[in-house]
Amino acid sequence: MSESERFDRGWELLEKIDGRPGERVMEGVGSLSPDLARYIIEFPYGDVWSRPGLDLKHRELATVSALIALGHCEPELKVHMGGMLRLGWTREEIIEVVIHMAVYAGFPAALNALTVAGEVFSDEDAGR
Amino acid sequence: MSESERFDRGWELLEKIDGRPGERVMEGVGSLSPDLARYIIEFPYGDVWSRPGLDLKHRELATVSALIALGHCEPELKVHMGGMLRLGWTREEIIEVVIHMAVYAGFPAALNALTVAGEVFSDEDAGR
Amino acid sequence: MSESERFDRGWELLEKIDGRPGERVMEGVGSLSPDLARYIIEFPYGDVWSRPGLDLKHRELATVSALIALGHCEPELKVHMGGMLRLGWTREEIIEVVIHMAVYAGFPAALNALTVAGEVFSDEDAGR
Amino acid sequence: MSESERFDRGWELLEKIDGRPGERVMEGVGSLSPDLARYIIEFPYGDVWSRPGLDLKHRELATVSALIALGHCEPELKVHMGGMLRLGWTREEIIEVVIHMAVYAGFPAALNALTVAGEVFSDEDAGR
Amino acid sequence: MSESERFDRGWELLEKIDGRPGERVMEGVGSLSPDLARYIIEFPYGDVWSRPGLDLKHRELATVSALIALGHCEPELKVHMGGMLRLGWTREEIIEVVIHMAVYAGFPAALNALTVAGEVFSDEDAGR
Amino acid sequence: MSESERFDRGWELLEKIDGRPGERVMEGVGSLSPDLARYIIEFPYGDVWSRPGLDLKHRELATVSALIALGHCEPELKVHMGGMLRLGWTREEIIEVVIHMAVYAGFPAALNALTVAGEVFSDEDAGR
Repeated sequence: MSESERFDRGWELLEKIDGRPGERVMEGVGSLSPDLARYIIEFPYGDVWSRPGLDLKHRELATVSALIALGHCEPELKVHMGGMLRLGWTREEIIEVVIHMAVYAGFPAALNALTVAGEVFSDEDAGR
Repeated sequence: MSESERFDRGWELLEKIDGRPGERVMEGVGSLSPDLARYIIEFPYGDVWSRPGLDLKHRELATVSALIALGHCEPELKVHMGGMLRLGWTREEIIEVVIHMAVYAGFPAALNALTVAGEVFSDEDAGR
Repeated sequence: MSESERFDRGWELLEKIDGRPGERVMEGVGSLSPDLARYIIEFPYGDVWSRPGLDLKHRELATVSALIALGHCEPELKVHMGGMLRLGWTREEIIEVVIHMAVYAGFPAALNALTVAGEVFSDEDAGR
Repeated sequence: MSESERFDRGWELLEKIDGRPGERVMEGVGSLSPDLARYIIEFPYGDVWSRPGLDLKHRELATVSALIALGHCEPELKVHMGGMLRLGWTREEIIEVVIHMAVYAGFPAALNALTVAGEVFSDEDAGR
Repeated sequence: MSESERFDRGWELLEKIDGRPGERVMEGVGSLSPDLARYIIEFPYGDVWSRPGLDLKHRELATVSALIALGHCEPELKVHMGGMLRLGWTREEIIEVVIHMAVYAGFPAALNALTVAGEVFSDEDAGR
Repeated sequence: MSESERFDRGWELLEKIDGRPGERVMEGVGSLSPDLARYIIEFPYGDVWSRPGLDLKHRELATVSALIALGHCEPELKVHMGGMLRLGWTREEIIEVVIHMAVYAGFPAALNALTVAGEVFSDEDAGR
């Protein structure tokens, strides 16, 4: 597979998963490091997200769970909670993931994630 | 809902999700702190895992993703990768989650999780 | 013990420990997830903080130490540094905990915690 | 204050807090890096633990809480749980700290800490 | 070596490495805890950064790599990315470190670090 | 650039940096997930380590610093401390990095890394 095929496949997935907020992140990344922007499209999206063994909806659940547990990834968590909505999860299911994480990552990590969820829902209500 | 109902519901779920390895963990916990053992059954299992908003299979995917990202939870990761198998995920899907985590938690966390997955698969092959 | 007894005991403790800032956090949590708000009152406060084996003052010292070490919990750290003041620790003792954490969690985590302590002291001076 | 005064004061505290297990750690450190061994005695013990603003017993509670929350510090946690015993905390109080940490650092971190506590208690029973 | 020699040597290094932004941090620290400010100058700078075994340029590379990996240290990362520039690393090399960290700490940690790098470069362009 | 060129370039670098211990890790990874093994060669080594903007020696310093700070990566730290030796750093310089990390990641993380360094040096002495 050529690099341009990986890139095209990755970009298509990034748009589908992360929507306009993801594109905005990529514009910011690209202005500082076009190479890092390209790697993000090629490796996480072109190579990993595109793998057939787990569908996009489940990958986004895994992603959001990991970002809540890592604890220092609020901008990325915001994009990927939006991704959960775009991929068909409901607001109620996002809240369930947040509650579930209180068990494994502790209540403070869950509370911080709940704040991010509230911002994602407000942005959606405002059509942002 | 009474405390004994929470406990009974939690214990039933713990057995279903974590199987014999989970029971062994709980015996160890109970010998040092019966109260912590009781809380684990009541809150994570009786309250959270039993919530209807997200099914057990998806909760276990979220759990394993978080444990890989946290990085210092290998005993718990082993129990919950076994839980993925018990709840109907395949070995291939567990490996997909590990690969996916390389993007978000870094390759070292993914490599450590792969080692744990190998142990879980060997234990299953050996009928442990 | 019934669930409502756990809730009442938890709410009483939360008010005593976290004061008005804690109530504000709980209002925010409750507007997004009434269930998570209820769990916070029932499990961390109703079950754990209310245990007789370690008094509230020592539990708050343990809490603040853990939040500094976790590093990604500034909103919660602010509430619980306020809790230290409400439970009888002095500003000097809070600063001692911050200095002590430089040894275990590194100087950057201690510096970030010192910034939070400064905000807590300013809020108290301003009667917030 | 001269460096040798810091060192002497630090060494005396290290022996009092960490006992024979702490000395064994320091022998290992010293064989690989005498300078790091000296810094540990001078800065954490000579400078920080010796400060008057918080007594040794409370400093050890803060230390153990932070080590449980950091999650990747089991050898150090073992030494400092032993320190809690040497400084007058009971086994029951150590277990309380472990339970309390489930709220803030998550249940997996608490379970791992409980395992360490079990080892510390066994070592004490065996006179190690 | 006397304490005042450690302090003087530390302060000189802090000014050389962290420049005016580092001084501003130290003013903030000093207003809340003169002792912590003194320790920062004496131990990290006076004792560690001044050691001959690794030069300042390499120490700053190690520092920035660690701060990116820790993930919750953005104010400190900003000061030390500035330190990389002051010590002779180029903007391109800072970006290389950020990209390299995507492998070890995950892409979210790298993206957050890239945002900080952008702020450092803007501040330098604006003569701040 | 074709995928096979990325792979070949990556494998050559992996052998140069990580030597026989790295090959052993890759054999273990490959037996569980040939795809993850391939990605490790293609992305971290083929894409990132091969970039011209920072030489191998500096990349390994950055890697080891990050692994010490992450704290839960001892197997990877062992391979990459070996990598530091293979790329021309001395044992003394490795110890310097460990000492330096005490400032940023805390003394427990530095102590754990020192233990790993001791194992790496013993392995080298034993010709492993």
